[in-house]
Amino acid sequence: MAVKYELIKECKQSGARLGRLHTPHGTIETPIFMPVGTQATVKTMTPEELKEINAQIILSNTYHLYLRPGHELVEKAGGLHKFMNWNKPILTDSGGFQVFSLGDLRKISEEGVEFRSHIDGSKHFISPEKAIEIENALGADIIMAFDECAPYPADREYVKNSLERTTRWAKRCKEAHRNPDTQALFGIIQGGMYKDLREQSVAEITALDFPGYAVGGLSVGEPKPLMYEVLDYTTPLMPKDKARYLMGVGSPDCLIEGAIRGIDMFDCVLPTRIARNGTAMTSVGKVVIKNAKYTEDFGPLDPNCDCYTCRNYSRAYLRHLYKAGEILSGRLVSYHNLYFLLNLMKDVREAIKADCLLDFRKEFFERYGYDL
Amino acid sequence: MAVKYELIKECKQSGARLGRLHTPHGTIETPIFMPVGTQATVKTMTPEELKEINAQIILSNTYHLYLRPGHELVEKAGGLHKFMNWNKPILTDSGGFQVFSLGDLRKISEEGVEFRSHIDGSKHFISPEKAIEIENALGADIIMAFDECAPYPADREYVKNSLERTTRWAKRCKEAHRNPDTQALFGIIQGGMYKDLREQSVAEITALDFPGYAVGGLSVGEPKPLMYEVLDYTTPLMPKDKARYLMGVGSPDCLIEGAIRGIDMFDCVLPTRIARNGTAMTSVGKVVIKNAKYTEDFGPLDPNCDCYTCRNYSRAYLRHLYKAGEILSGRLVSYHNLYFLLNLMKDVREAIKADCLLDFRKEFFERYGYDL
Repeated sequence: MAVKYELIKECKQSGARLGRLHTPHGTIETPIFMPVGTQATVKTMTPEELKEINAQIILSNTYHLYLRPGHELVEKAGGLHKFMNWNKPILTDSGGFQVFSLGDLRKISEEGVEFRSHIDGSKHFISPEKAIEIENALGADIIMAFDECAPYPADREYVKNSLERTTRWAKRCKEAHRNPDTQALFGIIQGGMYKDLREQSVAEITALDFPGYAVGGLSVGEPKPLMYEVLDYTTPLMPKDKARYLMGVGSPDCLIEGAIRGIDMFDCVLPTRIARNGTAMTSVGKVVIKNAKYTEDFGPLDPNCDCYTCRNYSRAYLRHLYKAGEILSGRLVSYHNLYFLLNLMKDVREAIKADCLLDFRKEFFERYGYDL
Repeated sequence: MAVKYELIKECKQSGARLGRLHTPHGTIETPIFMPVGTQATVKTMTPEELKEINAQIILSNTYHLYLRPGHELVEKAGGLHKFMNWNKPILTDSGGFQVFSLGDLRKISEEGVEFRSHIDGSKHFISPEKAIEIENALGADIIMAFDECAPYPADREYVKNSLERTTRWAKRCKEAHRNPDTQALFGIIQGGMYKDLREQSVAEITALDFPGYAVGGLSVGEPKPLMYEVLDYTTPLMPKDKARYLMGVGSPDCLIEGAIRGIDMFDCVLPTRIARNGTAMTSVGKVVIKNAKYTEDFGPLDPNCDCYTCRNYSRAYLRHLYKAGEILSGRLVSYHNLYFLLNLMKDVREAIKADCLLDFRKEFFERYGYDL
C-alpha cells in the first residue's frame, strides 16, 4: 500500500489525533497543514524554502496542471516531484472542485464534467477515469477521487443526488487507478450540511476501503459553526486507522477546531494569497502591512516569530516593498505566513502529546484574539 | 577616506586593471558588475541569495528612494544597509539620470532640476545639495555627484554647457557632502561623444580630487563602437589610483570591452529586467524561455552553469512557470542571469591576472556567439 496512517495517540482532553502518515516520499507528522502549489510551485517560494520552514507535504492542482503544462509533459519530465524539484510528499486534488467552480463554463453529467478552460476557452471533458489518468501521470503520493462538491446552500435532494454520484464516481476512480502501490487514492465524503446524508456518504465511501478519506463540501461559504457541527457528527463515523483530510481549510482557528474534531490534514491557498496582498498572520493578530501606521514601525512583522522574514526585516521595509510593488514583498510575507501556520500545527501536535489541546485553543484565542 | 582603490596589476595583453576597492562595508574585487536594487531590493532576490552568487556590491537609486519610502525614513531605519538587510557595500546614484529621463516632467536650471514624480505627479526639486543630502541620509558607501547627462545625439554646444554645469554641480556636491569619512563621493565625467569635451571634463572633474570617478553619458542610445571609442580616449586620461565606473552598462560584451578599456565597475538593470521577461543570458547564447522549442526541453537553462537554477530546474519547467505567470520564474532566471554576469566578471579578473584578456574576449565571443 502506498500510504499508511499510524495513529500514535489521541489527546485525552480533546480527542484530537497525533499520527504519522507514511508515504513513498517520506513520513508526515499529523495533524499537518499542506501549502498549496497550484501550478507546480507554491507561489513565490522555492522548494528549499519550504523545507526550511518544515513543510512536510504540499498540494498541487490537477485541473491547472492538466491545462498547463499538461499532465503528459509532467509525466515525460519524470513526474511532478522531479518537474518541480520537490522530493517530499505531494497530494493532488482531482480537479473536481475547480471545474465545478467554473459555473456557467461547465456542464455535469453522469459520465463526467464538460468545461471550458479559464485560460483560453478551449473545451475539455473530465470523467472520474480521466481525472485518475491525469493524477497517475502527475505521480503524487496521495491522489484524490473525482467527486461532486455541492454548493452552499443546496437543498437536500440536490445534495443527496450529488453524494450518490460521488460514490459511483469513487468506484470508477478506484477501478481506473493504475498505481495503487505507489499512489494512495483517497475517497471523499460529501453530504453537505445534512447529518443523515453525511452518514450515508461515510457508509458508502468507507465501504470502498480507500487508504484515506477526505471530508469534502465544507468551507464552501457556510458559517464556521456549521462546519464544526458537520465535523462533529462526521469524523466519529470515519475509520480510526486511516488519515482524515479536511479540504480547503487554512485559517488558524479552523485548523485548531478541525484537529480537535479528529482531522489530520488541511490545505488552503489562504496564507500565500493574503501574503501577496500584504496581509500577515501573526501572534498579535492580522497585520495589514500597507496600513499607514506601519510607516515608521521598525519592529519585526511578528514580534514573537523567529522566521527569516521576522529576523531580518522591519514592518516599515515590508510596507515599502508592498507599496512599491516589489516581488520580495510577496516572498517575505508568504514565507512568514506559511511558517506561522506550520508552526501552529507543530504546537497543536505538542498539545495533543501533552493532552491539553483544549487549553491550547483557549490560550491561542486569548493571545491571538482574532479570527482570520 | 571612506573608499580606497588599490591597483593590483594591469593585464599585459589588454591593459585592463585588476584591483581592490576598500569600503566601509568590505573590499570589492574589481572589475565588478553591480546588481541594481532600485527600490532598496534587487528585484525578486533576497540579500542572502545575492551573497550566494557572490555579489560584492549593489546599486540603489536615489530618485526612487527619495520619492518612496523617502530618505528620512531610511535614515530613521538606520540607513539603507540596515533597512534592506544588506551588510556589504552599496553605491547610490544621484538621481540625476532618472530626473533627466522624465522628459516633459522636468525643468533644468543652474540651481537644479524641478520635476514631477512618476508615481503621483507631485512637484519636487533636486539640486546638487539636495541630492547629496538624500545620499547622506541613505548612507551608501559610494555616492555619486549630481550631474547632467546629455542625451544622444546632442550638439557640441549643448554638451559643452552640460559638462560645464556638471563641473559646477560637482563642486557644490563636494561642498555639501557631510560624511566624507564614511561615504566616498565619486565625480562623473561627461562630454558626450566629443573627444575634446571629454578631455575638458576629465580635467575639470579630476581637478576636484574625488576618491573615484565615473564615466557618465554613455549607453544612452549611441552605437556600441562609438561608446568604445569614447572610452578609448577617456580612460587613459583618468587617474590610475582611483576606481573608474562606467554607468548603466550590463551586457556581457560591454563588460568585457569596458574592462579592456580600464573600467573597474559596471551596473545595469539588464540582467534582472530581461530575466523577468523570460530571457536568460547563457553560455550558449540568449535563451528566450517562452519559445515553443523549450516545451519539452528537460535540460538546464544553461548546460555549462552550476547555479541553483541550472542545477535544479529544466527549461521545460521554467517555460511553464513563465507561461503560467508564476513569480518563481522571475526569481529563478534573475538568479541565473546575475550569477552568469558575476561569474563572467570573475573570469575577466582571472584573465587579467593571467595577462590574457584579449584571448579571453576572442574565446568568449566564439563560444557565446552573441551580443546581448
